[in-house]
Amino acid sequence: MQDALARLNAYWTEQGCLTVQPMNTEVGAGTLNPATFLRVLGPEPWRVAYVEPSVRPDDARYGENPNRIQCHTQFQVVIKPEPENAQELYLGSLAALGIDVTAHDVRFVEDNWASPALGAWGLGWEVWLDGLEITQFTYFQQAGGISLDPPSVEITYGIERIMMALQGVRHFKEIAYADGVSYGEVFGQAEYEMSRYYLDDADVATNRTLLDRYASEAQRLIDIGLPVPAYSYVLKCSHTFNVLDARGAVSTAERAAEFARMRRLAADVAKLWISERESLQHPLGVTPAAVAARVAEPAGTGAASGPRQVVFEIGVEEMPPAEARAAREQLARELTERLGATRLDHGSVRLHATPRRLVAIVENVAAVEADHTRTVKGPKVSAGFRPDGQPTPAAVGFARSQGVAVEELTQADVNGVPHLVVRRHEPGRTAQEVLRTVLAGAVGSLRSAKNMRWRDPELAFTRPIRWLLALWGDEVVPVTAGILAADRLTRVHRTADRPVLPVASAEEYLDTVRKAGIVVDPDERLATITAAAERLAADVGGRVDLAAEARLVDQVVYLVEQPTPLLGRFDDSYLRLPEAVLTTVMRKHQRYLPVRDAQGALLPSFVAVGNGDIDVDLVRAGNEAVLRARYEDALFFYRADRDTPLAELRARLTGLTFTDKLGSMADRAERIAALARELAAGLSLSAEDQRTLERAAELVKFDLGSQMVTEMTSLAGVMAREYATHAGEPQPVAQALFDAELPRAAGDQLPATLPGALLSLADRLDLVVGLAATVGLPTGSSDPFAVRRAVLGLLAVHRSQPALAGVSLTDALARAARHQPVPVDEKVLAGIAEFLTRRLEQLLSEENQPVDRIRAVLLHADRPQFADRLLGQIDRLLTDESFRALAEALQRSRRIVPAGTPAGYDPAHLHEPAEIRLHETFKQVSADLAARPDLDEFTQTTVRITAPVNTFFDEVFVMAEEPDVRAARLGLLASVAELGDRVIDWSQLRIAHS
Amino acid sequence: MQDALARLNAYWTEQGCLTVQPMNTEVGAGTLNPATFLRVLGPEPWRVAYVEPSVRPDDARYGENPNRIQCHTQFQVVIKPEPENAQELYLGSLAALGIDVTAHDVRFVEDNWASPALGAWGLGWEVWLDGLEITQFTYFQQAGGISLDPPSVEITYGIERIMMALQGVRHFKEIAYADGVSYGEVFGQAEYEMSRYYLDDADVATNRTLLDRYASEAQRLIDIGLPVPAYSYVLKCSHTFNVLDARGAVSTAERAAEFARMRRLAADVAKLWISERESLQHPLGVTPAAVAARVAEPAGTGAASGPRQVVFEIGVEEMPPAEARAAREQLARELTERLGATRLDHGSVRLHATPRRLVAIVENVAAVEADHTRTVKGPKVSAGFRPDGQPTPAAVGFARSQGVAVEELTQADVNGVPHLVVRRHEPGRTAQEVLRTVLAGAVGSLRSAKNMRWRDPELAFTRPIRWLLALWGDEVVPVTAGILAADRLTRVHRTADRPVLPVASAEEYLDTVRKAGIVVDPDERLATITAAAERLAADVGGRVDLAAEARLVDQVVYLVEQPTPLLGRFDDSYLRLPEAVLTTVMRKHQRYLPVRDAQGALLPSFVAVGNGDIDVDLVRAGNEAVLRARYEDALFFYRADRDTPLAELRARLTGLTFTDKLGSMADRAERIAALARELAAGLSLSAEDQRTLERAAELVKFDLGSQMVTEMTSLAGVMAREYATHAGEPQPVAQALFDAELPRAAGDQLPATLPGALLSLADRLDLVVGLAATVGLPTGSSDPFAVRRAVLGLLAVHRSQPALAGVSLTDALARAARHQPVPVDEKVLAGIAEFLTRRLEQLLSEENQPVDRIRAVLLHADRPQFADRLLGQIDRLLTDESFRALAEALQRSRRIVPAGTPAGYDPAHLHEPAEIRLHETFKQVSADLAARPDLDEFTQTTVRITAPVNTFFDEVFVMAEEPDVRAARLGLLASVAELGDRVIDWSQLRIAHS
Repeated sequence: MQDALARLNAYWTEQGCLTVQPMNTEVGAGTLNPATFLRVLGPEPWRVAYVEPSVRPDDARYGENPNRIQCHTQFQVVIKPEPENAQELYLGSLAALGIDVTAHDVRFVEDNWASPALGAWGLGWEVWLDGLEITQFTYFQQAGGISLDPPSVEITYGIERIMMALQGVRHFKEIAYADGVSYGEVFGQAEYEMSRYYLDDADVATNRTLLDRYASEAQRLIDIGLPVPAYSYVLKCSHTFNVLDARGAVSTAERAAEFARMRRLAADVAKLWISERESLQHPLGVTPAAVAARVAEPAGTGAASGPRQVVFEIGVEEMPPAEARAAREQLARELTERLGATRLDHGSVRLHATPRRLVAIVENVAAVEADHTRTVKGPKVSAGFRPDGQPTPAAVGFARSQGVAVEELTQADVNGVPHLVVRRHEPGRTAQEVLRTVLAGAVGSLRSAKNMRWRDPELAFTRPIRWLLALWGDEVVPVTAGILAADRLTRVHRTADRPVLPVASAEEYLDTVRKAGIVVDPDERLATITAAAERLAADVGGRVDLAAEARLVDQVVYLVEQPTPLLGRFDDSYLRLPEAVLTTVMRKHQRYLPVRDAQGALLPSFVAVGNGDIDVDLVRAGNEAVLRARYEDALFFYRADRDTPLAELRARLTGLTFTDKLGSMADRAERIAALARELAAGLSLSAEDQRTLERAAELVKFDLGSQMVTEMTSLAGVMAREYATHAGEPQPVAQALFDAELPRAAGDQLPATLPGALLSLADRLDLVVGLAATVGLPTGSSDPFAVRRAVLGLLAVHRSQPALAGVSLTDALARAARHQPVPVDEKVLAGIAEFLTRRLEQLLSEENQPVDRIRAVLLHADRPQFADRLLGQIDRLLTDESFRALAEALQRSRRIVPAGTPAGYDPAHLHEPAEIRLHETFKQVSADLAARPDLDEFTQTTVRITAPVNTFFDEVFVMAEEPDVRAARLGLLASVAELGDRVIDWSQLRIAHS
Repeated sequence: MQDALARLNAYWTEQGCLTVQPMNTEVGAGTLNPATFLRVLGPEPWRVAYVEPSVRPDDARYGENPNRIQCHTQFQVVIKPEPENAQELYLGSLAALGIDVTAHDVRFVEDNWASPALGAWGLGWEVWLDGLEITQFTYFQQAGGISLDPPSVEITYGIERIMMALQGVRHFKEIAYADGVSYGEVFGQAEYEMSRYYLDDADVATNRTLLDRYASEAQRLIDIGLPVPAYSYVLKCSHTFNVLDARGAVSTAERAAEFARMRRLAADVAKLWISERESLQHPLGVTPAAVAARVAEPAGTGAASGPRQVVFEIGVEEMPPAEARAAREQLARELTERLGATRLDHGSVRLHATPRRLVAIVENVAAVEADHTRTVKGPKVSAGFRPDGQPTPAAVGFARSQGVAVEELTQADVNGVPHLVVRRHEPGRTAQEVLRTVLAGAVGSLRSAKNMRWRDPELAFTRPIRWLLALWGDEVVPVTAGILAADRLTRVHRTADRPVLPVASAEEYLDTVRKAGIVVDPDERLATITAAAERLAADVGGRVDLAAEARLVDQVVYLVEQPTPLLGRFDDSYLRLPEAVLTTVMRKHQRYLPVRDAQGALLPSFVAVGNGDIDVDLVRAGNEAVLRARYEDALFFYRADRDTPLAELRARLTGLTFTDKLGSMADRAERIAALARELAAGLSLSAEDQRTLERAAELVKFDLGSQMVTEMTSLAGVMAREYATHAGEPQPVAQALFDAELPRAAGDQLPATLPGALLSLADRLDLVVGLAATVGLPTGSSDPFAVRRAVLGLLAVHRSQPALAGVSLTDALARAARHQPVPVDEKVLAGIAEFLTRRLEQLLSEENQPVDRIRAVLLHADRPQFADRLLGQIDRLLTDESFRALAEALQRSRRIVPAGTPAGYDPAHLHEPAEIRLHETFKQVSADLAARPDLDEFTQTTVRITAPVNTFFDEVFVMAEEPDVRAARLGLLASVAELGDRVIDWSQLRIAHS
């Protein structure tokens, strides 16, 4: 290992990097060393390489986990400005380490980086070696909240990872550190002891004091104007925070506050550093600005020949799959529109894309545009000449502005009015002239969801654009964009013998790249992958559920330029792990396709898709090793968890802070349990459901105390069900514990059982009320605690469980409020109710319910299931003439009654037959109406009032002069209108007449 | 520079060293990295090399000083067990750095290392490259208070130093850090800012809190049993302490307390680490014990030939000069005695020594010892045989114990009594047999003032003993000692083509080593050096004051094996510096001989003494560069100091803590000033002295605020005089300020002026009283505040200044007590007085004053000058018969009066003529006697009482029966005796009769 470090160091020194020493205070990553954080700021060039022992307290595992180390070794390279060939340099470094990059599958897989504590972010990749993440590769965009100009590239090697792969060992302790000495022999004890410190023994009070003192010292030094020592205290803050965090002593709110403080300090340090360097007049010099390419002259004339194909290739460093897909569409749109705006004849526009290139092919592009006469409109003829035929100043001015003599002006009708005009004959431009503008414009307009800057002064995109190839037939189109000028050179696999190839003509482009192994058409790659996946799976008697894996396959299509699917296996024994664990690892972490048998059960195989002409056996072995390591990890957790009694796992929640004001996760679990029981009390649960709820409530959230869920939080609930089952809990209890975590996201499955649904509701009620009372409801896009998602979950669960129809979420929130350790005042509850109403409104709108109907039922937002029922009934009833008449009668009654008129009247003042009839009917209807009728019930009972209402309006003058009479009539109408008030908001409902 | 680090790393990796990373918390030296501190403990082998950026807050100089850096780069190598050839390996590393070790003068110069904070110490050297210290080389003996077994060797390179030398630059900022980038460009800003932090801006309260928290966390972790994290907190303590220290916030007492705490923590960590490694069963294995050499058989018989010379060479790694000298004497004594105890005929024993070898040459050693008959004494004959001639059990037992038959017993007289004896004929052993015992015994008995252990299981000496050469004529004497066995191989210069040479015979030894350039005779080296120094100095028209430099020359003799004196020069401009600065640097730091002109003024030249066959021009250039750098440093301080007003220098004392209870140095200076003024008030100073004292008191100690004195504390006073003169202060003031610091050591010059003497007294009085009251008086050898030296200073100054005769030190101490910021009680003052008396007693004894006289005058210890006068008078008066008679009369009077008898009597009871006469004479004498007579005065006045006393004794019976008469007679004698009581203690004085 020390040899590897020396080799990397030698390699990067050759590339002009300085060597510096690790930071002499604990840092979590090489990025935090001032040789990175400070040096990427400002205009000075900088190239550096160094080793950085990186301390991550929460990765401490007492040295027991084969892959987790509290202090791992990073090798860090920073190049500023980014050198335009950092990826190639990086591949060179792997070769220097003795890795055959032509045989292995080295991949750049999207992985953006952000350090909220440092106000820093960048875009880039994790680099995979046969599926193993060995390096983080980032183009820094901001640090300390300051945009970086020029941008730097950072390459961070995970040395232990690389060593384990190169040496083929399965535990970091087995790495040969030097001749005859293993990593474990040298560092094993420190690993154990520091783990003990970070996980168990660090004194929380002491570390809190240290954190405060460090922060105050940092602030003081900033105030004095000393960024260097200030920064070292910021680093001490960061480490101490991490220690507290690993000790489970940091609440969510505290975390946010500490991050904000560190971010503020880091930003101040960055500003100071920049100004200090300025006042030192930049001792290391100033990076010269990158110079935009000049517009080259068209290389050929093109005028003489017939129409030719155009190919335009935009070479990009590996784009994220979603971005590549979107860029392909954007480019198609841009080119079609921009070409459409010219007069250049052309055929179809086809777009292809791979991770590294966007390719546009336009058929039959004419050599020149058609000629064209352009008419420039001037003043009206009537305003252009005096009656004596002399031109007015308007005509003279127009002629002058157009550079012609007045005599040259002609006339044309514009909207039927004769105007003075100038007619200009414009000869068609050559294809090259047209294309260079169109293509340059298209490149310049490319934007992704998240854009970055690189050395280019003008362009911005998801990843750096590195080359342009533009051919019209066999002529280069002299497109320029930023610092790039197009030529006829394409780039194929970086590890090819000839990584850069000339393309003779547009027509030969596809052939040229195909011969070099590049499949530019995503559909073709998709076809290759699916066919191969099916074939490979069949080899082991299995299949790949391509429909279920469609999203994953779509991603993989954009991860490779030349798909090389391969079948890997893993040991049967891992099948003991829950399926969700196995597939989560395969899909989310490794992008492997799971292979299943005919019944859908997992087989111990997977399909991975390599890129290019790799050594399949070598790459398979690598991928298998990675999966094995991950499964080994999982198995380690799984075993440890299953060996732990549920009560003990549950007890661990005491050590997990929920938020500083809302107590531990154990407190929260107890609140959830209590609340679920209360909600159940209002329903009539079966005895079994009651028992299930009781037990599930005791255990709820216990799996947050398990190692597996600590590692893969997305498995919360899944592991609860698994571990509960293993521990011999009744199946309904296990299921309820799983249900309690549902839904985990929009569109996720919902609780299958009533006990589960009650726990799920209670969970979300507790979260929403607690956070609303302490932190406030989410505003804008900021929702760090996912309160919005919890509210949506409340709605979804309520709507999905018929048994919950009677539960009012507003009541339930008030109940939840009583369990909080903090006071929750009425205004907060009202705010939540309003928030919930707005979410339901939006949801129903997204479900394409008409706005009027949504508004009509929103008064039942606290019982969304009931709102659903009403919407269904509305939908049906609106086709019913009698309902429509009833609705109109009610609306009419409401309309005529002035706002604030109380319902109720003295029947003694009613004399007219129509009003007496209405009074009588109202009395009967009122008596017959159920307490909380739905719309069907209401309509059924109330429909007979339609006719009396209508007759009343026809025959009775409401606004009688006698006040008593008038009051009685208005009161009667108000009473009628009020009949439906609690059902829906009739005033919102639009009654269309067919 | 980064290339140099990479080369060193590669070199040591080849030697089997692991590479580890610098410590990720601030450390002051590579030694503190756990890869050294912890790994040298216990039995596991360990080889490591690493870079360590070493933070020394008090070396911060804002990057302005060319040679001082707050964070310098160490390259650290630790080899455990020490490999027996570490020096050779080290020279190999210099060669790897491209240094031609045959041309340069590479020297190992005594420099022992101790870290009180770590409870660690070791013996070794600083390595000089042409006079420049580039490496620290240490054999660790203890760490954490634990003796190390096996011992490790630590090699610490000062990289910036080496780089400056190799690159020939004069400021660390100019070092080429990498191609085209200077050290200053990369690290300049950090150097400035961290200096600001450490020197000016670190918050003292915050750092105190940190220090306490770190210490408590360290203690807690020790209690839990986690040495690794505990140690990292010990390191944080250490750094934070250093920060506080650099901020001037640490008092002497606080320093002692913090060191004690760190030492305790480090010791606990060390113990824990050892036990942890034990319980881990020593993952890195256990160093096999070194095996003592077995006694070889004599190689030759030696029996046949005649007497031959013996040469015995003990090869040692570079001994400190004083140790080499002492060892030479010790070995001579040992050999002489041990040979004397054998019967081996031999001639003279001559001893030589160089830094690397002790050589004994014994002439004419016989081939065999003379034969010998030994008589073993048994029981008396009378007890051995019964009257019947049968042997008693005693005789039988004796015979059996001697392995002979009873019949073989013979008789011999022992003290005239016939005994049974056994006579044994013992043939003489061969020279080899005798010598191997004698020489082995001599080696084993070698001890130095401070001994160390190395890999050898048996030997201990000032530095490792590496080889033995022992020849009797041409035969090897098979001496063994520890792991060494003697042979005929000697080692010459390490850089010689053949560093190991065989010696054919003892007689050829001197010739062999001389041919290889080794001068074993110190006298010859001395002669070479003095002759060459004189010659070289003469070349520039100067001379070397060999008498004054004798101590230095004596040292140099033992720093080289082959002296190669060379003349170096420095720029005239440095002669502007005070001579004391120039010579202090030359002598103390560089061991160069200053060259002076005929008038004794310094010339810009020096004589350095290289070792071996060096490239003189190269080495001269190196030495000149070193001196230049040091002078440049000094000039920097000198200029800065002279540009600072005296008042400002004085004001800086406010920031220097004296002790936590006794305030700042400014407080102390004020106390000194006030006290000196008070003392002066009791004397009659001339107006000029009074003015001088006033001004000097205002300024006293101001130079402690100067950079020069901060750097070279031995120049305190010297610089005060210098800077005061420069600032235009009157010459007497400047002199008084210099005087105030005198004497700086026993035998140093004393204040030349009265104002200076008063300040000097006041300084010492303040120190002694303050520390006695707060810390206590020194006991045993521990005297961290040099109170003993201060007391000796008090005595010396008092004795030297006639004007001070009237000053009582006891009174002065009481005055000083009143100025202290702490209460000083009577007991403390009494304790000091007693301490002072004992010191004077010892001093006078060392001056060979007879004990009785010393005791006679000790009652005036508070006025030692007066005691001196009395001693002089005693010496003279004792030759005077009348004085002797007086003394005896007084002694006799005192003797006869019972203790406690009051003086005074009622003359009415005196009737005898003799007593009347005595009474009359006493009255007259009493009346005539001066108030505080000295002995001369006293004798002159009192001598006439001798006769009446004697007559009284002859004629009067003192013990009369009448009580009144008896009382009067005794009272009269008591009164007579009392006459001399205040002058000397007459009872102590021994009166010899000639």
